[in-house]
Amino acid sequence: MAATGAEAKDPENHPRRKVPGAENEEDGDWKRGPNRKWGPDSSDRLVQLSNPNVATMKEDILYHFSLSTSTHDFPAMFGDVKFVCVGGSPSRMLTFIEYVATELGLGRPGDEHPNICSGTDRYAMYKVGPVLSVSHGMGIPSIAIMLHELLKLLYHAGCTDVTVIRIGTSGGIGLEPGSVVITRQAVDACFKPEFEQHVLGKRVVRGTDLDEGLAQELLRGSAELGEFTTVLGNTLCTLDFYEGQGRLDGALCSYTEKDKQAYLRAAHAAGVRNIEMESSVFAALCSACGLPAAVVCVTLLDRLLGDQISSPHEVLAEYQQRPQRLVGHFLKKRLGRA
Amino acid sequence: MAATGAEAKDPENHPRRKVPGAENEEDGDWKRGPNRKWGPDSSDRLVQLSNPNVATMKEDILYHFSLSTSTHDFPAMFGDVKFVCVGGSPSRMLTFIEYVATELGLGRPGDEHPNICSGTDRYAMYKVGPVLSVSHGMGIPSIAIMLHELLKLLYHAGCTDVTVIRIGTSGGIGLEPGSVVITRQAVDACFKPEFEQHVLGKRVVRGTDLDEGLAQELLRGSAELGEFTTVLGNTLCTLDFYEGQGRLDGALCSYTEKDKQAYLRAAHAAGVRNIEMESSVFAALCSACGLPAAVVCVTLLDRLLGDQISSPHEVLAEYQQRPQRLVGHFLKKRLGRA
Repeated sequence: MAATGAEAKDPENHPRRKVPGAENEEDGDWKRGPNRKWGPDSSDRLVQLSNPNVATMKEDILYHFSLSTSTHDFPAMFGDVKFVCVGGSPSRMLTFIEYVATELGLGRPGDEHPNICSGTDRYAMYKVGPVLSVSHGMGIPSIAIMLHELLKLLYHAGCTDVTVIRIGTSGGIGLEPGSVVITRQAVDACFKPEFEQHVLGKRVVRGTDLDEGLAQELLRGSAELGEFTTVLGNTLCTLDFYEGQGRLDGALCSYTEKDKQAYLRAAHAAGVRNIEMESSVFAALCSACGLPAAVVCVTLLDRLLGDQISSPHEVLAEYQQRPQRLVGHFLKKRLGRA
Repeated sequence: MAATGAEAKDPENHPRRKVPGAENEEDGDWKRGPNRKWGPDSSDRLVQLSNPNVATMKEDILYHFSLSTSTHDFPAMFGDVKFVCVGGSPSRMLTFIEYVATELGLGRPGDEHPNICSGTDRYAMYKVGPVLSVSHGMGIPSIAIMLHELLKLLYHAGCTDVTVIRIGTSGGIGLEPGSVVITRQAVDACFKPEFEQHVLGKRVVRGTDLDEGLAQELLRGSAELGEFTTVLGNTLCTLDFYEGQGRLDGALCSYTEKDKQAYLRAAHAAGVRNIEMESSVFAALCSACGLPAAVVCVTLLDRLLGDQISSPHEVLAEYQQRPQRLVGHFLKKRLGRA
C-alpha cells in the first residue's frame, strides 16, 4: 500500500474525461462484429462477486487503482469492457494496448493511451474499445490485490460476458526457449491443481480451473498464426523465483544440481511445461467469480539447461511479443476483424 | 519476469557513468563520521551469501535489476554502500533518496538521482553516498526476488557492515492512524514468528528474527524527533490484502464482521500492532545472510474500525513521510550528521 486513492478525488484527474473507448458508442463498430457473444441482446452474464457486502457499500475505494465509485463513473468508464488482459510489467501492458489499438483498428490513429491509474504507481491500466489492459506486478499477492479490485471494478461498472487473459513470461521445462504455453491447469509446488491461502488464520484451498474451451480456441489461433510453437500444458505456480523454482543461483541455495533436476523432471512428468508466479490465484479468483480465464506465457529459457536468463535483449524482446500476438489474433477473431 | 537483463549490455546504459556516490571518495565526508563502524580499518563484516554456487559463476545476471557482473563494475558502483532502504513504491523510494541527499548534505545541490535499474520496470534503485534506496513491489514473492538479487549485488560489490531497513505502509490494530510501528517480530497468519516456503516441493520454515538493537535505536530516534507516535510491536505478514487480512470489502468474502473482529483481536493479544505483506521474508532472508535488519511502517488506518483507506490524500501523503523522516534521522546520527 502506498499510493493514495484519494488522489482520484481531484476532478482534474477524473478519468471520465480522458479514457478512450468510454464514450465512443458512435465509433465503436466492434459492437457489430459477427461473433457478438457480448451483445446487449444476447444472454448477458453479469460479472458477479462472491461477497454480499460490496452491494451495500455507499462508496467503494479501489485504493491500489486510485479509483473510487464516488469520484469515478464506472459504468461510463468501463461498462463496455469485454476482454481484460493482464501482465506483470506496466510498460508491457502499454505496448499491448497500443498493439491492440493498431491491429484491431480501434480508436483513432495517433490516439494516446493515458494510464487510467495515473494516481498511483502500484498498477497501470489502459483501455481501448472493449479491451482493458492492466499490469499486476510480480507474484501471487501482487496479482491478487489487482484482481480483487479489478473484479469489483467490473461489477460496479455492470460489465457482462467478460473474458480475462493473463499474458506473461515464464521458465520452460523441456521446451525450446520462445515456445508459448497455454495453461491447462495451474498447479502448486507439489503439482496439485490447488491454490492454498490463509483466511482468518485458517487454511482454505481453492481449485485452479481455467476455461478449457478458451484454451483450445487460443491454441487453434496459434496454429492459424503459424509463427511460433504453442503447447497446452500445466503451469507450476510458485511463491519464489529462486529456491521456490529450484534455481541454483539465488542468494540462498541448499540443494544440488541433481536435486534440482529431479524436481524439474518430476514436474515434467506431472505435465508441467512452464513455471511462473501468478497463475494459480488468477485461476482461482476468476473461477470464483465465474469469469472464463486463460493464461498464455512465453518461455524465456529451458530450466533443464540452466537458471539464468541470458539471451540477448532483442531475442527476449521478440519472445515477449508472442503472447501479445497470439491474444491479438484471438481478439481480432472474436471481434470479427480477422 | 519481463524486462531484459541484456539491456544492461548496452554500454550507453552503463550505470558506472551516472551513479552518484560511486566515485565520490573526495566529497564523501560521511566516511569521517564519529560512528564509523563501517570504516575500512574496523572489523569489516563482508556480506555473505548462503549459496556456495555464486562464487564460482563466471557471470551473474541480476535479471530483475537489469544489471550483470560482466557489464557493470559492482565494487565501483556499490562498494561503499552501508545502508539499504527498501519500500514498495518506486516513486516513494525516489522521494526517499532525494530526502536523504538533502537532509544529510550528501551529493551536490541540484544532483539528479538516476534510476540505476532503468533497463527494467520491475524495480527502481537510487543511490546517494553510502545509502541505496530500492523499490520492491507488493507482497512476499515480489520482495523476495528483489532481496535475492540485492544480496548478490552487495556480495559481488564486496560490501561490508550493511544495515537494511524496510520503510512501508500498513494497517494498524488498535493504534491511531499515522502511528509508526517498528517491528519486534514478523509473524505469520497464525501469529508464529516463522516464514514458510516450499523448496523443491518440500516445506521449509525459517525464523523471522530482526535486529533488536537496531529496533531500539530507531525507537530512541523517534523519541528524539518527537513528531509522531512510534511503538515497538509484532507485525502480521500476510499473502493477501483482502481475505488474508480479514477485510470485508474484497471481491470474495465468506466471513462476518464478528469473525473478523475475533481474528484481529486475537492478533492484538499476540502482540500484533500492524499488518503488511513483506516483513517475514525480509527478516528471514536478511537474517540468513547475517545482515542487521529493521521494519518501520506507518499505519494508514485502524483495522478494528474499518477496512477502506479513506483518509484525504494530503493526510495519507504526510503519514507516508513518517518512516522516511524516522530513518532519515537515524542515518544522520549514524553518519555523524545529527
